[in-house]
Amino acid sequence: MFKKNLQVSDLGEKKLIERIVEKSKDFEFNSNKYLNSYIGDDAALIDFNNNLTNEKNYLVATTDLLIQKHHFPLQMSFFQMGWKAVTVNVSDIAAMGAKPVGILISLAIPPNLALESFEEMIDGILEACNYYKIPLIGGDTNEDDEIIISGTALGKVEQSLAKKKYGFKIGDKLAITGQLGLAALGFELLKEENKEIIEKSIENKKISSDLVDLSIDAALNPKARLNEGIILSKIASSVTDITDGLASELYELFEANKNFNRNNNLGIRVYEDKIANEPLFEEIYDLSKILNKDIFDLIFHIGEDFELLFTFNNDNENSIIDELSKKLNFIIIGEINNYNKVEIEYCDGKVQKLSSKGYEHLSND
Amino acid sequence: MFKKNLQVSDLGEKKLIERIVEKSKDFEFNSNKYLNSYIGDDAALIDFNNNLTNEKNYLVATTDLLIQKHHFPLQMSFFQMGWKAVTVNVSDIAAMGAKPVGILISLAIPPNLALESFEEMIDGILEACNYYKIPLIGGDTNEDDEIIISGTALGKVEQSLAKKKYGFKIGDKLAITGQLGLAALGFELLKEENKEIIEKSIENKKISSDLVDLSIDAALNPKARLNEGIILSKIASSVTDITDGLASELYELFEANKNFNRNNNLGIRVYEDKIANEPLFEEIYDLSKILNKDIFDLIFHIGEDFELLFTFNNDNENSIIDELSKKLNFIIIGEINNYNKVEIEYCDGKVQKLSSKGYEHLSND
Repeated sequence: MFKKNLQVSDLGEKKLIERIVEKSKDFEFNSNKYLNSYIGDDAALIDFNNNLTNEKNYLVATTDLLIQKHHFPLQMSFFQMGWKAVTVNVSDIAAMGAKPVGILISLAIPPNLALESFEEMIDGILEACNYYKIPLIGGDTNEDDEIIISGTALGKVEQSLAKKKYGFKIGDKLAITGQLGLAALGFELLKEENKEIIEKSIENKKISSDLVDLSIDAALNPKARLNEGIILSKIASSVTDITDGLASELYELFEANKNFNRNNNLGIRVYEDKIANEPLFEEIYDLSKILNKDIFDLIFHIGEDFELLFTFNNDNENSIIDELSKKLNFIIIGEINNYNKVEIEYCDGKVQKLSSKGYEHLSND
Repeated sequence: MFKKNLQVSDLGEKKLIERIVEKSKDFEFNSNKYLNSYIGDDAALIDFNNNLTNEKNYLVATTDLLIQKHHFPLQMSFFQMGWKAVTVNVSDIAAMGAKPVGILISLAIPPNLALESFEEMIDGILEACNYYKIPLIGGDTNEDDEIIISGTALGKVEQSLAKKKYGFKIGDKLAITGQLGLAALGFELLKEENKEIIEKSIENKKISSDLVDLSIDAALNPKARLNEGIILSKIASSVTDITDGLASELYELFEANKNFNRNNNLGIRVYEDKIANEPLFEEIYDLSKILNKDIFDLIFHIGEDFELLFTFNNDNENSIIDELSKKLNFIIIGEINNYNKVEIEYCDGKVQKLSSKGYEHLSND
C-alpha cells in the first residue's frame, strides 16, 4: 500500500495503470476466458469464436479519451479535433493488425458552443470514419465546460495474425513505417513564440515552407496506419503505434516481452545514424535547430507520430525485406539482441542505455 | 442547415444526436453490413457470426461518459463514482438482453487527487465489474481538473433474443422491473437544504429512516438489471432501461417504433393508479410531499432508476404473466394501443397526452 498523503501525480500514468492491473488480479472474473491480452497492450483481444469451426477471430477493443486543453492545440479546428479523436483510436486497432468493425464516440461540449462548430466536429469525426472505413455505431453527448471526446474502436483479426507488443526473437529487425519527428516539430511550429523566426527563416530560404506545412499537417491531421497494420499482421513479430515518443514505445516492447518471457535476456538496440537516414532527416534537422530543439529529443520523447513501430524475423536474409518493400514504406532502425536492455548507438559509435523519459501524463518528475 | 448564431444548447441532446445520425447517412460506409441497430437504441448490435454455422450472435457495444459536476453529487464517494460508471454502461447491455463480455474504462483525474481516493475509485470500478461478472479489459488514464469516467461495455446476445426499443404489437402489456422514483427521491434527500426537515420528520415518525436509507442507496449505489435483462430477452417484445425518467423512455419506445413502422398507429397508455400500486408507493408519496415534490414528477421526469421498461405479448391471457412472476419482480403499468400517442390515464379517469419533458442535457427550454 501507498503512504497516506501521496497524490496521483507522484506516480504518473504508467504506475497508476500498473496499480489497476495489480488490483484487478484480486478478482476471479478477470481470469476470464474471453481475455487474450494484457492491459498494457494497444488494445484488448477478446475471443469471438465458434467452437464448431476452425475460423478463430479476436474482437479487438481500445479506448482513448481526449481533453481539449491537453490534446487539442489552440490552432486546431473543430474538424481536426473530431478527426484526431477517431485517428488515435483507429491507430491502436492498426497496431493489432485488425480490420475496423465500428467506433463509439462520447462527446462533452460546452452549452454555448456554436452549432456550426459542433457540426464541424461531427464532420471531422465522420470524414475520418469514412477515411478508415470504420462505421460510427454509437455514442453519447454531454455538457461540460470544455470539449472532451472519448472514443472506443472495435476491430476484428484472425487469432493467428493478431500482433502484440511482444513476440519478437533474437536477431529480429526493428523498423518504423515512416518519418518520425514531423508531428512533434509541427506542434513546435504552432507555438506563438516561434511564429516570427519561422517566417524569417522561410523568407531567407533557410527552410522550405513545404516542410513547415508538412510538419503542421502531421500535427493537426494525423493519419493512423491502418493498411500498414494489416500488411504487417502477416509479416511482423510484434507491432505497436508510436504515440508517446519512440523511447517510451521501445520500453513498452521491452517490458511486454519481459512480462511474458521472464527468463530471456532480449534487448533492443536502435541506431542514431539509421534514424538519421530518413529521407527528410536533414531538412527536419535544420528546422529543429532553428527552433532551438534537438530533433532526437522530439523523436524519442515527444511522439504523436502515429507511425507503427515493428519487429520482423529476417532469417532468410533479404527476402522478407524485399517482400515488405513492395508493400509499404519502412525504415529499419535497429534490432533485437540478448543484452537485456534498451540501448542507443550514437553516430560516433558510442552505445548507451536509452533514457525512458517519453511524454508521460500526470507525472511530477 | 441551421442559422449561423445558434448554440448547441438551442437544440438539446436529442436533436444533436439526430443531427449526427442524419449527417452519417451521407457516407456510404455507414450502410455497413455489420450494423444492426439504429444509433438511438441503448447499444449498437454488430454481426459477429460465422457463416458456416447456424449460431448467430450480436456483439453489443455501448458507451457512456460521466462528468464529476454533472453526474456525481457531492456526497458520492470515490468508490460510488467508480461503481456508477460501470453500472450505467452495464444497464445498456442489460436492456439489449445481452451477457457481459468486457468493459473499457477511460479516466481523467486531477493531478492533486489523493492516491487513496484514486484507489477507492478503482475499487468501485472493480467491485462493480465483479458484481456484474464483466471483466475490465482496457482503458486509459488522463489528467484533467475534474474527474471524468468514460466507459464502454461490450456484450454478446443470440440474434433472435436481442431486445430493441421497438418490436411491440397492439395489446402488448407495458411493465417495469421494480420500484420507480426511489433514486430521484434519494437525490432530493441528499440536498443540504433538505437535511433539517428530514431529521425532524424521522424524529416525529412521519417517515421511516429505512425508506430514507433505501432512497439514498438507490441514488448512490445503483444496480443494473443484468439478470432481469437476460430473462426478459426470452419473453419481452421490447426493452429499454430507465435512465432519464419514465416519460422520456416511453417516448423513446414510441419513436423507435415509428422509425421502423411508419405506417402503424401504435401508441402507449400508462395508468397513474398502476404506478401507485407499487409496494412502497404510499411511503414514497409521503416522503416526497415532505420534500415539497410531486412523486409523479420525480418518476416521469427525473429518472436514474436503472430499472428496465419492457413490453410483452399477452395473447395467452395470464400464462406469460405467471411465467414471468416466477422469474422476476415486475409491475404492469400500461399497454400498447392504436391511438398513435403516449398517454397517461390519471387516477380520476382523465386521459391526457403525456408531457415528454424528461431530464434532457444541453437544453435551454
